Parts: sequence; C-alpha cells; structure tokens
Amino acid sequence: MIPNPVRQLWAQGKPALNGWCSIGNPFTAEIMAAQGYDSVTIDVQHGALDYNSALPMMQAMRASGVAPMVRVPWLEPGIIMKMLDAGAYGVICPMVNTARQAAEFVSYMRYPPGGQRSFGPTRVSFAAGSNYAGCANGEILAFAMIETRQGMDNLAEIAATPGLDGLYVGPADLTLSLEGGRLPPGFDREEPEMIERLHEILAACQNAGIRAALHCGTPEYAARAIGWGFDMTTVSGDSRLLAAAAGASVAKFRTLLSRDSVSVVHEGVY
Amino acid sequence: MIPNPVRQLWAQGKPALNGWCSIGNPFTAEIMAAQGYDSVTIDVQHGALDYNSALPMMQAMRASGVAPMVRVPWLEPGIIMKMLDAGAYGVICPMVNTARQAAEFVSYMRYPPGGQRSFGPTRVSFAAGSNYAGCANGEILAFAMIETRQGMDNLAEIAATPGLDGLYVGPADLTLSLEGGRLPPGFDREEPEMIERLHEILAACQNAGIRAALHCGTPEYAARAIGWGFDMTTVSGDSRLLAAAAGASVAKFRTLLSRDSVSVVHEGVY
Amino acid sequence: MIPNPVRQLWAQGKPALNGWCSIGNPFTAEIMAAQGYDSVTIDVQHGALDYNSALPMMQAMRASGVAPMVRVPWLEPGIIMKMLDAGAYGVICPMVNTARQAAEFVSYMRYPPGGQRSFGPTRVSFAAGSNYAGCANGEILAFAMIETRQGMDNLAEIAATPGLDGLYVGPADLTLSLEGGRLPPGFDREEPEMIERLHEILAACQNAGIRAALHCGTPEYAARAIGWGFDMTTVSGDSRLLAAAAGASVAKFRTLLSRDSVSVVHEGVY
Amino acid sequence: MIPNPVRQLWAQGKPALNGWCSIGNPFTAEIMAAQGYDSVTIDVQHGALDYNSALPMMQAMRASGVAPMVRVPWLEPGIIMKMLDAGAYGVICPMVNTARQAAEFVSYMRYPPGGQRSFGPTRVSFAAGSNYAGCANGEILAFAMIETRQGMDNLAEIAATPGLDGLYVGPADLTLSLEGGRLPPGFDREEPEMIERLHEILAACQNAGIRAALHCGTPEYAARAIGWGFDMTTVSGDSRLLAAAAGASVAKFRTLLSRDSVSVVHEGVY
Amino acid sequence: MIPNPVRQLWAQGKPALNGWCSIGNPFTAEIMAAQGYDSVTIDVQHGALDYNSALPMMQAMRASGVAPMVRVPWLEPGIIMKMLDAGAYGVICPMVNTARQAAEFVSYMRYPPGGQRSFGPTRVSFAAGSNYAGCANGEILAFAMIETRQGMDNLAEIAATPGLDGLYVGPADLTLSLEGGRLPPGFDREEPEMIERLHEILAACQNAGIRAALHCGTPEYAARAIGWGFDMTTVSGDSRLLAAAAGASVAKFRTLLSRDSVSVVHEGVY
Amino acid sequence: MIPNPVRQLWAQGKPALNGWCSIGNPFTAEIMAAQGYDSVTIDVQHGALDYNSALPMMQAMRASGVAPMVRVPWLEPGIIMKMLDAGAYGVICPMVNTARQAAEFVSYMRYPPGGQRSFGPTRVSFAAGSNYAGCANGEILAFAMIETRQGMDNLAEIAATPGLDGLYVGPADLTLSLEGGRLPPGFDREEPEMIERLHEILAACQNAGIRAALHCGTPEYAARAIGWGFDMTTVSGDSRLLAAAAGASVAKFRTLLSRDSVSVVHEGVY
Repeated sequence: MIPNPVRQLWAQGKPALNGWCSIGNPFTAEIMAAQGYDSVTIDVQHGALDYNSALPMMQAMRASGVAPMVRVPWLEPGIIMKMLDAGAYGVICPMVNTARQAAEFVSYMRYPPGGQRSFGPTRVSFAAGSNYAGCANGEILAFAMIETRQGMDNLAEIAATPGLDGLYVGPADLTLSLEGGRLPPGFDREEPEMIERLHEILAACQNAGIRAALHCGTPEYAARAIGWGFDMTTVSGDSRLLAAAAGASVAKFRTLLSRDSVSVVHEGVY
Repeated sequence: MIPNPVRQLWAQGKPALNGWCSIGNPFTAEIMAAQGYDSVTIDVQHGALDYNSALPMMQAMRASGVAPMVRVPWLEPGIIMKMLDAGAYGVICPMVNTARQAAEFVSYMRYPPGGQRSFGPTRVSFAAGSNYAGCANGEILAFAMIETRQGMDNLAEIAATPGLDGLYVGPADLTLSLEGGRLPPGFDREEPEMIERLHEILAACQNAGIRAALHCGTPEYAARAIGWGFDMTTVSGDSRLLAAAAGASVAKFRTLLSRDSVSVVHEGVY
Repeated sequence: MIPNPVRQLWAQGKPALNGWCSIGNPFTAEIMAAQGYDSVTIDVQHGALDYNSALPMMQAMRASGVAPMVRVPWLEPGIIMKMLDAGAYGVICPMVNTARQAAEFVSYMRYPPGGQRSFGPTRVSFAAGSNYAGCANGEILAFAMIETRQGMDNLAEIAATPGLDGLYVGPADLTLSLEGGRLPPGFDREEPEMIERLHEILAACQNAGIRAALHCGTPEYAARAIGWGFDMTTVSGDSRLLAAAAGASVAKFRTLLSRDSVSVVHEGVY
Repeated sequence: MIPNPVRQLWAQGKPALNGWCSIGNPFTAEIMAAQGYDSVTIDVQHGALDYNSALPMMQAMRASGVAPMVRVPWLEPGIIMKMLDAGAYGVICPMVNTARQAAEFVSYMRYPPGGQRSFGPTRVSFAAGSNYAGCANGEILAFAMIETRQGMDNLAEIAATPGLDGLYVGPADLTLSLEGGRLPPGFDREEPEMIERLHEILAACQNAGIRAALHCGTPEYAARAIGWGFDMTTVSGDSRLLAAAAGASVAKFRTLLSRDSVSVVHEGVY
Repeated sequence: MIPNPVRQLWAQGKPALNGWCSIGNPFTAEIMAAQGYDSVTIDVQHGALDYNSALPMMQAMRASGVAPMVRVPWLEPGIIMKMLDAGAYGVICPMVNTARQAAEFVSYMRYPPGGQRSFGPTRVSFAAGSNYAGCANGEILAFAMIETRQGMDNLAEIAATPGLDGLYVGPADLTLSLEGGRLPPGFDREEPEMIERLHEILAACQNAGIRAALHCGTPEYAARAIGWGFDMTTVSGDSRLLAAAAGASVAKFRTLLSRDSVSVVHEGVY
Repeated sequence: MIPNPVRQLWAQGKPALNGWCSIGNPFTAEIMAAQGYDSVTIDVQHGALDYNSALPMMQAMRASGVAPMVRVPWLEPGIIMKMLDAGAYGVICPMVNTARQAAEFVSYMRYPPGGQRSFGPTRVSFAAGSNYAGCANGEILAFAMIETRQGMDNLAEIAATPGLDGLYVGPADLTLSLEGGRLPPGFDREEPEMIERLHEILAACQNAGIRAALHCGTPEYAARAIGWGFDMTTVSGDSRLLAAAAGASVAKFRTLLSRDSVSVVHEGVY
C-alpha cells in the first residue's frame, strides 16, 4: 500500500498542511491537490457535496500524491466506510463528545481484529497499491473532532481511545458550544479563554501520544498553531479562497476605476 | 423580459466588469455571482464544463441579478441556440475571422426577421420574465471574438455586421496568431505592437458604433483598458483565482514556518 | 438573514401553501417555484432524489422567493444538517413517534445553546443573506411528522417539545399504522375516524401553540383543512401532477379520435 | 430488431400520438413513457437537457415499449449519430430548409449503402434486440422539420428526398419565419393562412408518399390535425404539462380559500 | 405487482444466480442485466456508487426482467427505505450480528402491520405494476448478512427472525472476523473450518425455513455451493469481471508479441 | 510537458497497445488504465458518453501514466478542441474521407502557426506538466480514420497531410462502405479482399512516414496486425469485455449446474 504522506511527515518530525474542499467538483479538487498541500480533505459534512461528488474528486487528486482525506457528516458507519472504500487515507469525524463515541468511530475505521470495518476496498484497491488489506489499519488516519463543551469535559478519555490517531479542533463549533452563542462562531480565535482551550487539547494529545490538528483561517494563525505544537493545520478552503480572491479582484478594479477617473481621458488619447 | 444589466450600464455611460467561470459547478457559479461582477460568463469553450454543467450554473446565478453570459466552443448553431434557451443574456463566439462568419453568428442569435434562431425558450422563459419572444432580440448581447490575423485583416467588415453588439478580444490567441508562436500566449500584453492592435480593435468598434471588450489577467490592466475606452473587461476567472489564492496561502504558510523555526520553540512553551 | 416567508404569512394570520418536489431535477424545481406556492419542499425521503440533486434544486428555487424546505429520509443527523447547510428554511422529519425523538430532531436543527447543530453554513451563507449564524435558529422551521399509532399516543408530549415549530401529518402512513393495512394508504381521507385523528392533531398543536400542516391530494381537501384550522397544506406534488396531466391529455386525445372518427373525413377535405 | 411501434401503427392505418420531454431526467421520462403515448421524443434542441441526460432517459423508457425518439439541436452529424447509437428509433431534425439539407440529414441516419452513418451501436445493441445492423435502416424514422419560409419554398423537393420518412411541422418557428414576427409564435394556429400552410405541407407529404406530423398544444387541436390527415401529432410536453397542472392547483386552492373565507369559521368549529 | 422472479424460481425448486454491480453507471447495469442472471444486486455498500447512481441503474435494468436488488451500506433506515422506493425487489443488509438487529432490519422492509416502512413508492409504483402497496411485503426479499463471529454466535436466533427471507454470507468479512486477520480476506474459502461455517449457516437456514445465499468468486465454487444446498449464489461482479477480462486481453497480446517476435518479419512482407 | 508515452514507445521501435472505453464512468476508466495498456481511448463517438463523462475519466486515468486519447464524434472543431483542453494526448477523428478534411482536422489539433487551435489549456495545464503551450503541437497525436470507400480512394493524399501522425482503421465501417452491406460489419476481417485493404493502408502510412493503427477484436488478430507492421492496435473495449466476461460466467455456472445435477445430492450430504 502506498504510504500515507502525512504519517511520513510526522515520522520526520514535520508538521502537515491540509487543504480543504467544500466545492463538489473534480476539477477544483485537482487544482487544490496541485498547490503544495500535504493532504487535502473533502468536507462531506458542511461542504456543498456528498459521496457522489467525493468519489471523482478522490480520483482526480490521486496523481498529485497528496493524502486524500474526508470529513464525514456525522458518526454514522455507512458513510464512514463508504469514504474509506472510495480511497480516503484519513477520516475526520465531527462532534465526538465521549470516549464511547470515539471508540465507536475507531471501530468503523479498522478491519478486525482492530475494529468492525467491513471488507470490500472495491475502488481504493485500484489506487492505493498492493496489500491494502494488510496495511490499511496502520496507514489510515482517524481524527475525532473536539468541538463541544461535552467533548472538552471528556478530553482525556477521548484522547486515550486505542486506535485513535489524533484530535481535530473545530474552533467555530467549540466557541459556539462553550460560550453558548455569546461569541460569534469563526476560526482563529484570539480570546484568551479560547486559546487556552486549544492548549488544553494540545496537551491532552501530547499526554496520550496522539496528534493534534487545528482548523485555521489564515496562514499566520496556522503558523502560530504549529509553533504551539500542533501537528497539522488546515488553512481556509476552496470556496472561501475563491470568494475572497474574486471579491478582492472586483474591489480592486472598482477602486482603480474611481481613482483613475481623470487620467482615463488622457491615456484614452494614446 | 428582465432587462440586460450590461446594456443598462452602457446606457448610463458606465463600463461593465465581467466574471469568468471555467469550473463546471453551480456552487462556484453562485459564489462568483455574489462578488459584484456586472455579468458572469460561463466558458463552454476552454472551461472544464459543457451544457450539462452550464444549465444549473445559470439557474444558480439567477438570484444574483448579474447577466449570465456564455462563451461557446465554436461557431456552431446547435450549442449557441441551446445556451440561449438555457438563459444566456449574451454569447461570446470565438474565432470570428470574416464578416461572413460574423453574420452567420448573428443569425443564430436572433429570431426572425433578424436571424434564424429557432423558437423554444423552454427554460429561459421561467427566468427572464414576460415577453421573452418580443424582447430577446433587443436584450441579448452578441460578441464576436477577434483573435487571429485573419480577424484583424477583416476587422472593419466584422465590426460593421448588422446586429453584432461588440467585439471581444482574446489576447492569448491573438498573440499566437499574429506572432506565430514567437511570443508566449497570455493576457495583459505589454508589447507595443500588441497594445497597438488593441487600440485598432477599439477604434474599429467606435467607428462601427459597437462595444469593445477585453479579456484581462489583472484589475490593473483591466482598469487601463477601461481608460483606453473599452466598454467591458473580464479579469481572470474562477479556476485561476482559486489556484492563485490557494497557492499563495500554502507559500505563505511555508515561509512563515521556515522563518519562525526558532521562535517556535519558545511560543510552544506558552 | 432573509426572513422565512412562511413565518411571515403566519404572523399575518394567513395559511401557507406548500409545493412538493419528488423529481430530482433543478428545472422542475424552478418550474414548481414559479407557480405561486409559499414554500416548496424537496422530498428526500420518498422522492426519486438525494442530496446530490437537492442542492442544485435549492439553488434553482432561490430567485423565486419561496421558502425551500426538505423532507429528510429519517431522523438521522447527517442528512438533516447537510440539508440545512444546503439552504433549507424548513425540515420535515418523518416518523417522529416519541417526545424523545422530537427533542432529538430539534437538537439537530438548532445551533447551541438551543441544540447541537454543527456550524458551517458553507452554501446557505451565499443565499440567505447576512447574519445567518445569529438568525437561523429563529427562522428555520422544524416539523415533526405524526404518522403512526405510537405518534398519536404521544401526541401531546411531542407537540410540547421546546423548539418544535409544528406537526406535519402524513395521512397515508397514519392510516396504514392506525388501521394495520385494513384501509388502503392515501391522502384526503374521508373515513370519520381518520378525520377525527386529524382534528386531534390539530387540537394538540393549538394546545401547544405550534403549527399544524397536512399533506393533501387535492386543492379541495386542502381548502377544507385550512377551514379546520391547519396552518399549512401541501397539495399533490410534481410527479403526480405531471403523470395526471399527461395521462389526461392522452385520454382526451384518444377519446376525441374515437368520437370524431366519422367527421374526420369531411374536415380532411377542407 | 424490435420493430418500431410507430411504423406498426401506420401499417395498420392508425395515427400515432407522440409525447415530449423537455426535462432532463430519467424519472420524468419513465413517467411520460407510462401514460399511453405511442412514442416519446426527447427534445435535445429546446429542452433543458443534452446527451448526458438523454441516455438514461432512453434507458428508463425502454421497458414501456414506446418508441424513443429525439429532436436534435441542429443538422449536425455528431449528435445525430450519437442519439441513434444511444437508442433513438426516430430523429426529428429542425430547420431543414432545402432538399440538399434533407439529403444530408438522411445520409447521417442510414448505414451504407443508404447513407454515411458510422457503425457502432454500442448501447442500442443491448436494447433493440438482434440484427440491429441489418434492420436499423428500415426501422428508424427520419423526420425533417418544416419551419421556415425557405422550407415552404422547397417543400416538394424536401418531401421527395429518398429515405426521408416524414415532415414534422413546428408551428411556432413557421409562423415566426413566414410572418416575420407579425404574429406571436405558438402552437395551434387558428389564422386561416397558417392553417392553409399546414394543409400544403400535408399535401406535399401525401404526394411524396411520406408521413406528416404536427406539434400541437392541446388534444383538441391534435385531433383536428389527425382529422385533416396528419399521421402523428405531439400534444404539449412534460414541462408545460407540469407548469400548467401545478399552476392550476395553486389557483384552485387560492380561489377556494377566498370563496370559503366565511364558512371556514364554521367548519373550524367542527 | 410484478412477481419477484427469485421467489418464482425458488417456488419451482430452482436456485437463483445473482449478478453484482459495483460500478455506478446505468449502461453497465443494462449490460449486466442482459447476461442471464436471475437477479442483479447494486452494491451501495462497497461499490463505487450511491443512491444517485443506483436509481438510473434500476431504471436501466427494468426492461430485462431480472430482479433488481440492493446491498445497503449499513443497517440504517433512511437508505434502506430509499432503495425500496427506488425499486429494489430485495435488500441485503450487511453486518447483522444479533436477532435484535435482524428484527430491526425486517421492520424497515415491511409496511405495517409487518413493520415500520414508510409508505411512498414514488418511483417504484411506475415500475412494479399495480397494487404495490398490497403486495410489496410479500414480494420483496430481506437478506441479513452473516459475516462476523458475533453473527455466527447468534445464528439460530437471527435465522428465526419473523419476516426475514434469508441469510447472505460474506466470506471475506466472515473470515476476517472469525480468524482475526490470520487468514487473508477473500471469497471461495477452501479452509475446512471455513467450509464448515458455511454448512452451519446453511443448516441454520434450513432449520428456520429460510433461504441461504453465498457470495462466490467463480462459477465453479458457486456450483459447489448450490450442490451443498444454497438457494442463491453471486459470482464475482462487474468491476472484477472487467478488470480480469481486460488484464487477460493485455497479457495475451503481450505474450503473443514476444512469442511471435521472429515470424513478424516474414508475415510483414506479405 | 509530460511526454506522450506512445511517441516514446514508437521512438524505441515498439508498437503500442491501446485500450478502449465506451462506458461513461471514471471508475471503469481507472480500472482500464490499470491493466497495462500504453494508451486508453475514450470513445466519444460510439461510446455511451459525452464530454461531461469524459472529463472525470481523464482525471481518473491521470495517475496511471497511460496516454489518454479520445475518439471524437465527428470532424467538428468544438468538441475536438474541448477534448484537447480536457487533457487528450491524442485524438482519433472518424470518417476522414478527403485530404481537405484531413488538413482541416490537423488544423484543429495544432496551435498557430501549425493550425488554428484556440489557446486555453484550462484543465490540461494542471495535468500535463510545464510548458504545455510550447510542447503540445509536438506531443499530441492526430489520427484520421480511414473507414470508407472515399477514404480509400484518397488514401495517399490523406496520408500525406502535413501534421497528421497516423491513420486509424475502423474495419466495421470500412467493410460496410466498401461492400455496401454485402458483408456484415465487424472487426478482425478474414476476407482476403479486406486484409488486402489493410495492407494498402499500411503501405500508404509507410510511404508517407506516418503511423498505422488498427481496431481489433482479439489479442490474436492484434498480434497479427503488429506482425504486418501496424504501430498500434486496439483490442476490444470495456463494454464488450464486461459483457463477454459476465456472459461467460453465467454460462459456465448454468453448465456446471446441469452437469452436476446428480452429484449435487452427494456433496450436499457433506
């Protein structure tokens, strides 16, 4: 089986940069996979897509060598196993709030005896190289999302789940849940109490010997998070990047036009 | 029929800013339509999409109020009329090299007696408001692309084609054709001979009383083109904007990481 | 956030008419949204479609101003939240049989502190206007379907669920469940015992201060239901309307042909 | 090869009733194919669909026994042959204005020596039964549309084209072209001059020994057309039938509500 | 309702041969349905497809007369009922490990009073003939998969579940679970202990008066299984058959070329 | 630009084996690309697919390293250039009957000054490596199909077309056209007069210094063709391979069952 590039980076002591796909399209996936990310996650939870779009996206990313990952909609076995069979080298499961949920999640990710994943790597066996059956349990990454007060309360127990590879932090939901709507949801929290939560999660991961990943909005915050000790960061995502870039282009054009309203006449003469 | 916002802008003496969709997806189309462009063109020629993707993209753009336009693959009547029935308020036809081709193009765009467009506005009649049959010939924009040496040679005759609304300049193909591969293809030409060609096209439009549009790579060049007198400019497009934004985000993160490689340790202590 | 038109009607003391989409296609959705319904529900339960079709359908309905709603396949959190992120202004959940199920359903529909919905309005934030995070809990409608004997037994408790907006009655399943197959399933029940059940549900809603909605087969029955006090009715749906209209057209033609078999000769002379 | 049911009807001296699909969806196609039409045509010209939708539509219609037909976007060989390979038992070609165009059209429809159709019935060979190669030229119907003044001028020559099976009349385009926009486009013309044109076309078909088909809006007009001698009529189509049926349902409900505004109170007491 | 051909075969004392679709495409489904299988199962669990592909596949299989069946991803009610509404004449549910799970599965498959299936046969009512509501409970097949140690432990209780039609054996998962990874997963087990398990399952079915089905890799093993008493066998599947056939064709060509490397010269002279 | 593997093989004096895709699906494309072919051609002419399916198929094949090629529906510039922009490393154009058609075809395949291809490698630039603009004319293969009597009559002139890389022989159409239906269409002709035609085409290629390719049904015939001097052969295709393999599996099972009808009883005892 082709090794998981994220595990390889970690084995070398390096952090991983994860890209994010919310647009359900193989061309955008191919574009994202070409930008230098170490892994690219297809967001089947909040992204505007489902399995039907995710499959050709994984095919389109294959040639790039990035690790294809998936965030699933919920702790539901059907879609988790379908995404693995489709080729995911990692699954991020939202809203893992208890150690029992974490164990259930891991069980869906691993073949017996490590879990209860059903065997049938129909598509992935064409993409992942030989001996998938023997290697998958050891290569594929299982991330549980910590994003609620309950998840924080059970942090150590969740982190200690056998077979779990890491915790992935969703700052928007975590803020919503912890603050009950007092603070607006969003990434890149600057409130001291929220930064403290991030460090608690990081510490729990380090205690348990697993990895910590953080969803960020900017490269600057992501670099800070790596500095804090996070092993993986996601920075923005395709739909946000596109909207921001197009919006900035329009704004620049409008600004230039209004500023140049006089000089226009002259150059027009040429 | 809902009026064409591009025509309305021009009637007010204002230029139009056109967005560009090369990704075949209704969500990216909806994102692009929300950024403040006056029109958004779906590129069925070089874009990674065909009719099957373009139809839901036009539906997704409808609520935004931008004028949906289409660049068709070639001067072929089947696809031109299909895109009009699907809802296009403007069609950009590539590689119009002679006055005869320009007249043929216009004939596909207009109902009799102005042309030979076949009547059957099956989908567009649900989107464009009442009396489409009576208004379409007057609202929909027909742009012929000037992008070859032959097109330049026939510039005045093409511009004089009755019913043609404007010339749209493709700088990449025009450079390729005029220079025979001596210069690399691309937008935003700075070679004096190429800028002169743009002004010749502009002058031909002004002589013929039609509009001139230019495909640009940056807001800066687009603003210059408006200053020269162009009535519409396109600035980059969704796939380029996404690739550039994602690539820049990755590069920024990598740079920050290498620069901060020392301080990381310290902040890690927190 | 753009207000929910159904809530606005109710605030004015008016009932709402809901359309129904069982065909998985954005063009039929656009057609349905143009017919004057107050809301249009995409049936992801029994309709011939899933998320992949529902997303462009919601985009195609956006320009019409109707409230887009979804009936989900089952009380499953993954698909409920996906449909909300895709733009649903209301969700109808089938087979809610206990107060505990009703509370679970509501929890998936609301952001903390009102529930456990995960935050990530990736697509809907482009369609629903500003401040979706702050307004969604108050605008989006949560309907629990009463359609089993067990649901009837727990009627008052279900109706009293905090955060639930209304009960939606599925007469076919309700009849099947209550009568155990003695009566054929179908809408527009005329059996006195079934009409009595409808009034019990209506009374439970009124006692709990929530809304009552009824799935009907004809405008006549729907108008009666409004007369009884229902706040919303659905009348037939796209696939039934199409089949009935096409079937009637064929039948009319066949009848006319057989009736006119003699006169045909004469008019043929002209 | 499974015989063409339309040819079988004609052989028995009976007219054929054709259904019409403008919605690009296999479920609507399956619904339409179940209503009793003799053939069902997928409109790849003005319908909101292309090849990609038409293929599964033909598969969905296969079990019904109706003859699947296609109206192609234009006299373009690529799409005509693709639709035949996909399973069409008849092709309606729009805008055939000269005998030369008619001959060109027929040549695309027939294998040598009768034409230049390329051999490769990849999908249709799974649907049409044995010996497709030997039978296709004799079973598949080729209809040329007469819908312009030029087409009327060349009527006799077009009708005399060897291998052409019939003329199909598009009244909307024909009116537009003949009257130059003086009359609004539409079906079911009542103007005496237009009815005369229909009879001229019918006479030309009868002289040439080929079939005449008319696109109609209502069963009543279609029955009249059969009475005049037409061999096939189309009555409305899926998108129009759906819009009309849904619109009528909404209107009926609104009317009942306003009419019953008083009595509502009373029955509400129950 | 059109009778289930598999039940008809069994009533005649004959075994059934089941085909298997892992490719999400209506053309491959149409091809598979034409090969002489008695039923064809669409694998929504490990196949590279979901509901969105499965629906047109069932439509494409309809004309063939084979029984369309579906393997669902997991014991989840939403997708089970959606596949029934889409037209499945049988459902294979993976990983049924307890009698309680088996009973839950059956409940999703049957209308009241036999279960809790929700009524709404929107698409299937166009395909399955009249009186679907009255016949579905008796025609549609419910198979529980035995593929874990826990399932083996509860074999008799599972087989005794009222309303269950049969057990379907997945040898790959069963081997994985029973042997904890000691043996590689795969079909057509030759280990005596595994063959004994198959006979235990067969005996449990015969004791309970239900059917036994086995997933096989080759016709030879399938014929043996029928000889043992299995009522249905699946032999390989579309993706495996295609890969094997194409791979063998390439290998044959390569072998012929190397073997003929001398004689090539001579025949080349011709 | 990543070099064309077919050109590399030819430069080494080796023939190329081409795979063939008629099924419109990225998973089947990925399967075919993994079987050891040197190139794989997507058949947009007779295959059950169009551009919309071909794009993700090319993405799915990218990781395999085979050269992706396309057979276009006809000599139509729109689709030829779209397939090149989508990533084709070779285009096979059907029904090239004259030198003028061959020159027209080549002109659509090459950027100026070698042709009139329009510049916009939107998707292919993400897949083909750097400097596509500079290398494409030299890497991409242009094959004209010889498959009619007229094509045979103009063989030498067609083969002499500057910029044409090879002739591709379609034996089914060629037989149909030459024999006017006297012989059934099909591959692997054994009639001496047809084999002679193949040698004439081969000789014309060798005289013109271009390549010869033959569409075959079996590895045996393909190996013979290589022996004759052909530079590339296609052997069967995905839909035929699947149908044959599945049909053979069913037949084998049925045969085994009838043969073993007696012994079954005994092994059943076990």
